[in-house]
Amino acid sequence: MGDGPRMALPLRAVTMAPNDAALIIIDQTCLPGALVELSLTELPAMVEAIRSLRVRGAPAIGVAAAIGLAVLAVRAAAEHPATFDAVVGAAAEQLRAARPTAVNLAWAVDRVLTSGQVGGAPPQVRAEAMVDAATAILDDDIAMCERIGIHGATLLRGGMTVLTHCNAGALATAGIGTALAPVYTLQARGETVRVFADETRPLLQGARLTAWELQRAGVPVTLLTDGMAASVMRDGRIDAVLVGADRIAANGDVANKIGTYGVAVLARHHGIPFYVLAPTSTLDPQTPDGAAMHIEVRDADEVRTLGGVLTAPADVPVHNPAFDVTPAALVTAIVTDRSVFHPPYHFTA
Amino acid sequence: MGDGPRMALPLRAVTMAPNDAALIIIDQTCLPGALVELSLTELPAMVEAIRSLRVRGAPAIGVAAAIGLAVLAVRAAAEHPATFDAVVGAAAEQLRAARPTAVNLAWAVDRVLTSGQVGGAPPQVRAEAMVDAATAILDDDIAMCERIGIHGATLLRGGMTVLTHCNAGALATAGIGTALAPVYTLQARGETVRVFADETRPLLQGARLTAWELQRAGVPVTLLTDGMAASVMRDGRIDAVLVGADRIAANGDVANKIGTYGVAVLARHHGIPFYVLAPTSTLDPQTPDGAAMHIEVRDADEVRTLGGVLTAPADVPVHNPAFDVTPAALVTAIVTDRSVFHPPYHFTA
Repeated sequence: MGDGPRMALPLRAVTMAPNDAALIIIDQTCLPGALVELSLTELPAMVEAIRSLRVRGAPAIGVAAAIGLAVLAVRAAAEHPATFDAVVGAAAEQLRAARPTAVNLAWAVDRVLTSGQVGGAPPQVRAEAMVDAATAILDDDIAMCERIGIHGATLLRGGMTVLTHCNAGALATAGIGTALAPVYTLQARGETVRVFADETRPLLQGARLTAWELQRAGVPVTLLTDGMAASVMRDGRIDAVLVGADRIAANGDVANKIGTYGVAVLARHHGIPFYVLAPTSTLDPQTPDGAAMHIEVRDADEVRTLGGVLTAPADVPVHNPAFDVTPAALVTAIVTDRSVFHPPYHFTA
Repeated sequence: MGDGPRMALPLRAVTMAPNDAALIIIDQTCLPGALVELSLTELPAMVEAIRSLRVRGAPAIGVAAAIGLAVLAVRAAAEHPATFDAVVGAAAEQLRAARPTAVNLAWAVDRVLTSGQVGGAPPQVRAEAMVDAATAILDDDIAMCERIGIHGATLLRGGMTVLTHCNAGALATAGIGTALAPVYTLQARGETVRVFADETRPLLQGARLTAWELQRAGVPVTLLTDGMAASVMRDGRIDAVLVGADRIAANGDVANKIGTYGVAVLARHHGIPFYVLAPTSTLDPQTPDGAAMHIEVRDADEVRTLGGVLTAPADVPVHNPAFDVTPAALVTAIVTDRSVFHPPYHFTA
């Protein structure tokens, strides 16, 4: 392909070890300094990896929990068939509770658990069914990303500059990402979309992850602090905003990384389209609107420190919600693997 | 005063040593970890202190440059009277150039320099006049803060919660601050105003300085990352926004710390008044509007690192403007030491 865009091998943020023996993840807390793969075989380590954001991004943690549960089921069937149900049930419960806001996590765990509920079958057969379900979730996630990329690409074209918040890229999924999928899709067609990445305090997913994966893939990326987004919009440098979602209510209200709502308000003020890109599994028709969403509040020291360095008085009170809700009225379109939705949004089961 | 609000001794961010022998500043790069006072007697150290933000805030750097120039003039008059003009002129030029955006810096340097241009007088007399001018700038700054506090307090009342960005408090002036002055004024009257402080990336003046000085003064303060401001506004928790300014154009456009413009857009969206509080010396009638303002762009590593810790790929491109411009249309009122101004703004010389 001559001098076409250079693209590194695709990332594999989450995958399953051969013989269903382990959940393998890239430890995202080590990025951008080091690319470390973890091979997880025990429930506490899997729960810790999800809770500590070693694997993060709603689709990726769904896939990780699915694979993790299948891996544990295979071992339980081989080593402790008599207590299979108790072990698998407890594992499902703990994995489901590891992060409260992402709907994909509970969805993936339940799908794997249900697939193993084969009446009268021995544990080994049931574990095999759970592996099949987890593998299907993994493969579906990769295909889901591809389809979001194709749908999202219809809203963009080469030469544009987009702004993104947090990381809804390859590192947030098993495939090429959600919000960033159209950027990779267009890149594969030889069209360059430039990305401005909000660093996304407190945990800096934009700086650590989005900047890293885009640079690695050869996509031109510029890093901003969160407070700079308004200024570059006013300068006329942003053609569209692309963000992911952790949960989308029936009316189109979007829960996503804290800071997303502010970006949506700024985009509206500057007449810039604001696109939410997420898998169908993120749609939660049971939740009527954003007011009904539970928002995870995280530890104050995430705000008071950075990389172990104290950046504020050690005892200053902190407000640290992990997510915010962007009202549907500010969302220009919601792009899923199925379609591009425009307002008014009415998602049904 | 019984159980009234506990208030620590006032901070002295900038002052002059006895006998006009040194410029004394609190080294703000050491906060909140340590309260370090520097006694500066040499031009390079003074310029470095301003450029490296050891002393920062438009009013404070004006006072610091004024005192610094006077200190250097006194020594030049005593030690090298023959080269007095050359030494003082070069010092004025370097101090004026230490930070490009703040209008107070050039204003203060020029005022001290002009006061020393006494035709035919010996250097020692001229240096004394410069000390008098610097002392007047220091005293005026303290009084200016008091008056901003009194004017600003007319817009607030006890029980309110305000949001502020960056640090325009006591650490940014020789007195009780600009944006935070009304909070201290009301506190002295026994009325409590609660403050939400944006941490203000990249240099975290909100986390390191605003949170520290408010806590020290006994004002209830809650720290936020910049991306959380929109969310607390939407929750109805913010009654007003108070920010400082580095330069205000004739039409009321306001240059202030990067991120201020975004906060202004968010305040407008939520129907929250957005107040800019700054000394009269910040008004720059020669600059017609924001488009004519020079915006300092700072080093990329301020964004890529934090406290020496790398938080992004080491070579990722960065956009790092130090300031942004908030258009006058988003500013509910401009509070100076002279008055409370409402739109439309027309500042004249």
